[in-house]
Amino acid sequence: MQRNLKLIISYEGTHYLGWQKTAMGPSIEEELEKVLSQILRHKVSLQAASRTDAGVHAEGQVVNFFTENEIALDRLHKSLNGLLPKDITVLHIEEMPALFHPTLDNRGKEYHYFVCTGPAQLPFHRHFSWHFPYSLDLAAMNEAAESLCGRHDFSALTNEKQEDNTREIFEIKIEPLASNRLKIRVSGNHFLYKMVRNIAGVLLYVGCNKISSQEIPQILQSQDRTRAGVTAPAHGLILHRVLYD
Amino acid sequence: MQRNLKLIISYEGTHYLGWQKTAMGPSIEEELEKVLSQILRHKVSLQAASRTDAGVHAEGQVVNFFTENEIALDRLHKSLNGLLPKDITVLHIEEMPALFHPTLDNRGKEYHYFVCTGPAQLPFHRHFSWHFPYSLDLAAMNEAAESLCGRHDFSALTNEKQEDNTREIFEIKIEPLASNRLKIRVSGNHFLYKMVRNIAGVLLYVGCNKISSQEIPQILQSQDRTRAGVTAPAHGLILHRVLYD
Repeated sequence: MQRNLKLIISYEGTHYLGWQKTAMGPSIEEELEKVLSQILRHKVSLQAASRTDAGVHAEGQVVNFFTENEIALDRLHKSLNGLLPKDITVLHIEEMPALFHPTLDNRGKEYHYFVCTGPAQLPFHRHFSWHFPYSLDLAAMNEAAESLCGRHDFSALTNEKQEDNTREIFEIKIEPLASNRLKIRVSGNHFLYKMVRNIAGVLLYVGCNKISSQEIPQILQSQDRTRAGVTAPAHGLILHRVLYD
Repeated sequence: MQRNLKLIISYEGTHYLGWQKTAMGPSIEEELEKVLSQILRHKVSLQAASRTDAGVHAEGQVVNFFTENEIALDRLHKSLNGLLPKDITVLHIEEMPALFHPTLDNRGKEYHYFVCTGPAQLPFHRHFSWHFPYSLDLAAMNEAAESLCGRHDFSALTNEKQEDNTREIFEIKIEPLASNRLKIRVSGNHFLYKMVRNIAGVLLYVGCNKISSQEIPQILQSQDRTRAGVTAPAHGLILHRVLYD
């Protein structure tokens, strides 16, 4: 009988070209398919909730695949974590109804973007947080974040426009952490290419007064990428979790 | 004029054989002396508050050296962080009175030991936290921690006895963190070889009921290392800060 297995996985993206398989170099998808095929003794095709970019990390990526192998889930779980590279970890395995699809069924995602604003960044954070050593106006950033929430055309905040660029941001929270760090939490229904990194970029430009928080509605309306600051680098971004009903 | 310069540095110990120079391989001391000599154009000898072991990290290691070079401190700071490997960062530089000595002047140190007790550890933590996947009795661990605090002969908790093994632990705090993690904070006046890792080891053995918290006073009195459980691995340990008056 065909089983539909869901995995929740976490990975450090530093040494990969992203989730998706590519002939250019290592990908998470390729590593995971290779190990699954080795354990289950058939070719495995994965579907993932999010195609994270090169250098982006995941704490709760959701993927699925089909198998007729009757292996017990806890044995599969242990074998996977034994054979996978140490920067990819399976956190959870579950058998799902036949129709479950990780991309089509999710109602959104939550990403976290980390920034260090101090003069020197702790070396532990260098692969997981953008070093942006400027003092930031958090009140202005919160105002800008509020203007970004809700349903908008996000053409100005993507590096690759679609036919329809309307998306919904549920919430943006900016949380100060210890050691001069900030966590920017962004949740929304679906995200355009590089949209979260562009949201982080425009918020940081507002924070250091290169863009005024009042301008955000006009920038969105202009649909002009060049007005919205920089694309924050990949290594500060983590796919925190995928939201299902 | 001779200047006595103090640096506060942070490093990821993963790829080093520890603080101290050795012919066996890379050390933090060697990397830092090499770069300082390059900038100041004379041989530099460092003194450090703590000789951290292979794989142990530091958030606030304190070191000093002497120079007659009149370089401005902010320029020295930027040059150092530009030239040092990315896993070593200078957080702070300061000119001190001639007699300041980082080891002799400190009144103690605070170390943090990180543990993940969940079934799978997030890959981001794999170099910074011990994966110890057992459910722990925190109340018993806190009782044991209390018995360890104060002045005692810590022979049972070192892998290399000295003539006098009496030390003082100021405080041990066990803090639950997100993602099934624990932080064990240990501060004390001076530490014996591997003492913090042995404290972490005995507390975790108490947590999973291999040792009873009531036995701690007897174990200390026995001065018998074999009764006090395991030495927790190096990669969970961080020198958090050095305490000065």
